[in-house]
Amino acid sequence: MAVYTQIGSEDVASLLSLYDVGELVALKGIAEGVENSNYFIETTGGRYFLTIYESRVNPDDLPFYHSLLDHLYKAGCKVPRFINDRQGQWLQTLSGKPACLIEFLSGVSATVPTPQQAHACGGELAKLHLAVRDFGLERHNDFGVLHWRTLIAQCTEKGLDSIQTGLAKRVTDESIYLVEHWPRHLPTSIIHADLFPDNVLLLGEEVSGLIDFYFACSDVTSYDLAISHAAWSFSADGTNYMPQIGTAFIAGYKQISTLNHVGNIDFQTLARGACLRFLLTRCFDWINTPPDALVVRKDPLAYLRRLDFYCSNPDILGG
Amino acid sequence: MAVYTQIGSEDVASLLSLYDVGELVALKGIAEGVENSNYFIETTGGRYFLTIYESRVNPDDLPFYHSLLDHLYKAGCKVPRFINDRQGQWLQTLSGKPACLIEFLSGVSATVPTPQQAHACGGELAKLHLAVRDFGLERHNDFGVLHWRTLIAQCTEKGLDSIQTGLAKRVTDESIYLVEHWPRHLPTSIIHADLFPDNVLLLGEEVSGLIDFYFACSDVTSYDLAISHAAWSFSADGTNYMPQIGTAFIAGYKQISTLNHVGNIDFQTLARGACLRFLLTRCFDWINTPPDALVVRKDPLAYLRRLDFYCSNPDILGG
Repeated sequence: MAVYTQIGSEDVASLLSLYDVGELVALKGIAEGVENSNYFIETTGGRYFLTIYESRVNPDDLPFYHSLLDHLYKAGCKVPRFINDRQGQWLQTLSGKPACLIEFLSGVSATVPTPQQAHACGGELAKLHLAVRDFGLERHNDFGVLHWRTLIAQCTEKGLDSIQTGLAKRVTDESIYLVEHWPRHLPTSIIHADLFPDNVLLLGEEVSGLIDFYFACSDVTSYDLAISHAAWSFSADGTNYMPQIGTAFIAGYKQISTLNHVGNIDFQTLARGACLRFLLTRCFDWINTPPDALVVRKDPLAYLRRLDFYCSNPDILGG
Repeated sequence: MAVYTQIGSEDVASLLSLYDVGELVALKGIAEGVENSNYFIETTGGRYFLTIYESRVNPDDLPFYHSLLDHLYKAGCKVPRFINDRQGQWLQTLSGKPACLIEFLSGVSATVPTPQQAHACGGELAKLHLAVRDFGLERHNDFGVLHWRTLIAQCTEKGLDSIQTGLAKRVTDESIYLVEHWPRHLPTSIIHADLFPDNVLLLGEEVSGLIDFYFACSDVTSYDLAISHAAWSFSADGTNYMPQIGTAFIAGYKQISTLNHVGNIDFQTLARGACLRFLLTRCFDWINTPPDALVVRKDPLAYLRRLDFYCSNPDILGG
């Protein structure tokens, strides 16, 4: 939630002069995205986002994101496109940082999704998985199952148990279990890996856009469904499972794709993995963010509660 | 630069259902304004800002701001209007805070204004001053000449000289001079009191909007021109006076209004006052903002340098 790089309208107007997008008529810094600086831009020709990539995004990964969104768009997925300038360039430099002009998509994110919205989003995730079958590129998952022990060590030395007594042992035991039981036999592909409700744009009950692909990477395809299931199907604090949302999300997915034949046991493992991944990164951010910083620190324990739920419920997918 | 109050799209959609503005299609938190939370809203009918008033704005002042913008709009000034709901209400409550739907104006702020832009803005400020002649309401200037000693005391006890050695004595001496020489004989009116370049929207060389009236108050009318002169006519760090900008701003003003017959000596005093006011509030914010907060701390000394300039240049207005 921040604009880290301040840019002037003159610099933006100068950048836009490289494109066939008309003249600048509005420029507003957007208070979302913790990885990048984002500006809403209106021109005489349309509306766009200008994203300036900050240090948390590896510039070497940008061609991957560009190719992925280009591939998904051409396959009919509802994703924003990178805009090319007159020379066919999509990557620019602004204030010494990589910057891209990106399509603006209408739609708003649901804070409390309806079952219809969850069903629609499950379907769009399945379409994404079908679309990437002939996408040739790979990207390592820096937050994947083999990285959790390192993350736990980094958190533990800074006081993981200060968040909750016994947390260090709990996540260590869980990570050992998951490394052992991770369903490596299941099909892998590029996954979104962060399809929370705030990364889905909706117009009513319909999906108008899937956004924020900066965690997209190669992993077990069904892990993506497990991540979304954990993100969508609970009250924000993780205390209440909302079966009608989870069921609708999976039904929406199944209606489009065969779900890669994942069974209950593997899905439980993947969902436990999803919970541990977000529990750990939230713990890391919690420990490393000053309490008075103007950034909302997301409660890590909301994902410990989800983990508890999946540990006690091995049959989420149903028969 | 922040969105302090997080709201969900469902709450915004529910609020918009009170208005004849169509359905919500986009909602983005805007990273500007330190007083309020601002959201950009697009509906099927148009574009708007949703402003949620945080603790720094006194809710009792909101009817004043509403009346002022209504008055200015009807007088032909380029200001955003508060939007009424179907019951004729412009003031709502969201997350327990006052909130208003406000017209979205096109235009971008200049970081490095041109003389033509300064001329156009001077003219719009003069139109504003002509328009408020028959505006009946008053609002005390909480940052006016009689408040500077208090502000100095608050800053001094927290270490004003830590910003620059001798600063406490310098601002104390200056405030004594200004209280003594303040041109109380000049006409007073409602003034904008914060018409910096970032509060002026431009389309090319034309002004499309004057915004952010939350410091508007009753004071010497020409003080408003002095504030803008100090804000527009220098490099950001205050080291370079740009006479072509200052001259153009004043010429633009004079073309519309008689400048309230302010002379060189009084204008110098008013400009010194403008510099002291922003020097002091920036010192206050500097001292009270942690260096690692995600808020840009504005350099107070940029206004000490402007103060030095006006002290040595008593004939800014020219013959």
